[in-house]
Amino acid sequence: MPPDPPVVTFLSDYGLEDEWVGVVHGVIARLCPGARVLDITHGVPRHDARRGALLLRSALPFVPPGVHLAVVDPEVGGTRRAVALRAGDGRLLVGPDNGLLTLAASDAGGVVEAVDVGHSPWRLEPVSATFHGRDVFAPVAARLAAGEPVAAAGSPLDPDELARLELPRPRREDGALVAHVLTLDRFGNAALDATHEDAAAWGVPAGARVRVERSGSAPATARMARTFADAGPGELVLYEDAARLLALAVNRGSAAEHLGLRPDDELRLVPA
Amino acid sequence: MPPDPPVVTFLSDYGLEDEWVGVVHGVIARLCPGARVLDITHGVPRHDARRGALLLRSALPFVPPGVHLAVVDPEVGGTRRAVALRAGDGRLLVGPDNGLLTLAASDAGGVVEAVDVGHSPWRLEPVSATFHGRDVFAPVAARLAAGEPVAAAGSPLDPDELARLELPRPRREDGALVAHVLTLDRFGNAALDATHEDAAAWGVPAGARVRVERSGSAPATARMARTFADAGPGELVLYEDAARLLALAVNRGSAAEHLGLRPDDELRLVPA
Amino acid sequence: MPPDPPVVTFLSDYGLEDEWVGVVHGVIARLCPGARVLDITHGVPRHDARRGALLLRSALPFVPPGVHLAVVDPEVGGTRRAVALRAGDGRLLVGPDNGLLTLAASDAGGVVEAVDVGHSPWRLEPVSATFHGRDVFAPVAARLAAGEPVAAAGSPLDPDELARLELPRPRREDGALVAHVLTLDRFGNAALDATHEDAAAWGVPAGARVRVERSGSAPATARMARTFADAGPGELVLYEDAARLLALAVNRGSAAEHLGLRPDDELRLVPA
Repeated sequence: MPPDPPVVTFLSDYGLEDEWVGVVHGVIARLCPGARVLDITHGVPRHDARRGALLLRSALPFVPPGVHLAVVDPEVGGTRRAVALRAGDGRLLVGPDNGLLTLAASDAGGVVEAVDVGHSPWRLEPVSATFHGRDVFAPVAARLAAGEPVAAAGSPLDPDELARLELPRPRREDGALVAHVLTLDRFGNAALDATHEDAAAWGVPAGARVRVERSGSAPATARMARTFADAGPGELVLYEDAARLLALAVNRGSAAEHLGLRPDDELRLVPA
Repeated sequence: MPPDPPVVTFLSDYGLEDEWVGVVHGVIARLCPGARVLDITHGVPRHDARRGALLLRSALPFVPPGVHLAVVDPEVGGTRRAVALRAGDGRLLVGPDNGLLTLAASDAGGVVEAVDVGHSPWRLEPVSATFHGRDVFAPVAARLAAGEPVAAAGSPLDPDELARLELPRPRREDGALVAHVLTLDRFGNAALDATHEDAAAWGVPAGARVRVERSGSAPATARMARTFADAGPGELVLYEDAARLLALAVNRGSAAEHLGLRPDDELRLVPA
Repeated sequence: MPPDPPVVTFLSDYGLEDEWVGVVHGVIARLCPGARVLDITHGVPRHDARRGALLLRSALPFVPPGVHLAVVDPEVGGTRRAVALRAGDGRLLVGPDNGLLTLAASDAGGVVEAVDVGHSPWRLEPVSATFHGRDVFAPVAARLAAGEPVAAAGSPLDPDELARLELPRPRREDGALVAHVLTLDRFGNAALDATHEDAAAWGVPAGARVRVERSGSAPATARMARTFADAGPGELVLYEDAARLLALAVNRGSAAEHLGLRPDDELRLVPA
């Protein structure tokens, strides 16, 4: 049996209207014809490196280990670094050094090797000032997928110098849990920054009512549930989502619309 | 020559903004690295199992036989069954038991074996309450693609117990054909529930005028044509579409917008 | 080592809401199971063959040589020809004869062989009047990818008879450069018809101010820059884009929105 093909996963804010995603696939296919490229998503909101980082962290445990290319790069052509990282579990991550990669790398055993690839010998010449996905990141990802060592991709870099994202953190205030909206998905479900462990420590049982308070808005009432299908249509539920984060949903509706939620909104959850 | 890789096709209402489609691809690639995953569409309107079923039925004859994964699953985490089906022609279908799979299975020789995979030994643990695409359906599809038998995917189920979709049916009233809008595509073309055979029996020749009557709307006039390119720009045409259904289109325009059509609308077509 | 798989690239205006892209993939996979299909984009605006032609030209140098399938086909089922072309560098192009293929073919060494595939022996029967992507173009692309000769795809055609696109051309008026908007991308960047060479001959240095005049609008001021990251947020910049065309962008914004630009708009660029 032949060995499994090397895998490159690819996440970006490129969208699918232009030729950019196809061009990156093309560059990888030219340099590493045996690679299998798996698109995670290209629908990250433009320039939203935090959303990209959260999506990458959420997807990584479920995709095969390989090279993980991510491009959400508002500072392309500016002074931000371009990097390739090796994580403790062997996964390789390639992209701009703006925090996009480090959440996922942290969950994958931490960054054990970092390389600045901004002047990588593998770049496509002439390097454009605006499309480093094509000219820098894709060729680096492809050569790594083909088996070249990370150290050959550029200049060594101290992992402590990598840019990190600041994420909100939930806190307890008496019986209340004060949490923040991390992401809103296509169905209007709102993932909060409270994890499975935070929720377990809070200890509100399934079926209980919870008042959802937010500055400047009327409070709403949600029901703790295992899933939104446990609630009636239109009912607000608080449940643990597939990334094991506490989340708000409206069964057959949109919690984002229902409550007018935006990323980073602070919610005070009070057992009722 | 190596054998052709196993094929998994994948259809859903997940959209492409989130990481869900990529994660399902990842789970399949981990469990069956040789599989080729072919996306049919992920743009099914949210929770619209009927639209998903029609798209799957339309696509299936043109994709290689293999495992056909489909997830439009408003009742995820609830009491609906999760199933794997073997069709008479050997195709395997995996998804929720809400009618999504049965139209396609029916055209593929009918369901000859059905298995409840809700507690499949192949599920990913811990199984989330909300993302069975990742935790139940993808691993089942991947293992079937890898050659495991359907019977090993879960508990046997009587095919007669599967949920079925009710579709509208056209009828003849004197010279008129009363038909219903099945689907509206991206270009605003409206496929009706009248088939090639229904249209042939109706017998209105190419070039003839047909009055399109609809309750609450002013009647419009369409021309029977082989294709919309046979009509002038802006002209309404009645033609047989690529799925061999009678359909309404506006050349270089949108029949959906022009007539304000919605799925299930009843149209009375009267030769003029 | 096995040989690299044949590559088919695919570009269309089909969008991703319907099953059309998946069906074309399916037809190719059935007829040439070893082919690797690489999607360039399916987000070409409906019926916009010029936009499709420009995207194809831009992507082609970066994708592996192979069969390049493109379908933006407002005249499907009408009298337009369906063609397969062999370019001077060996690439094969398949699609409607409406100019969609010829810009890319021209950059790939020109058309050295052309075949009318409208009645190709490889068509899928019954050929629909409206979905030639499935019934004509995909089987032709797949058979060519499998190694069949172009000449076997249909009837020979004189390359001089192929439809050509008319593109605007920039001109110099004293110190000014009069250019036109070719395309607007997802980020609102506007690529003009002035190339790297046109810009070099014009000779306005980085950092210089340029007045952007347009009939019926107040003039704006842009700065010549290497990339939009060289400008402040909201600032209008004139730079060379990744396709080496002169382009207008707003850093972290949209030049299209800022200036109300549309394709074909004529801009007079005057060094200030």
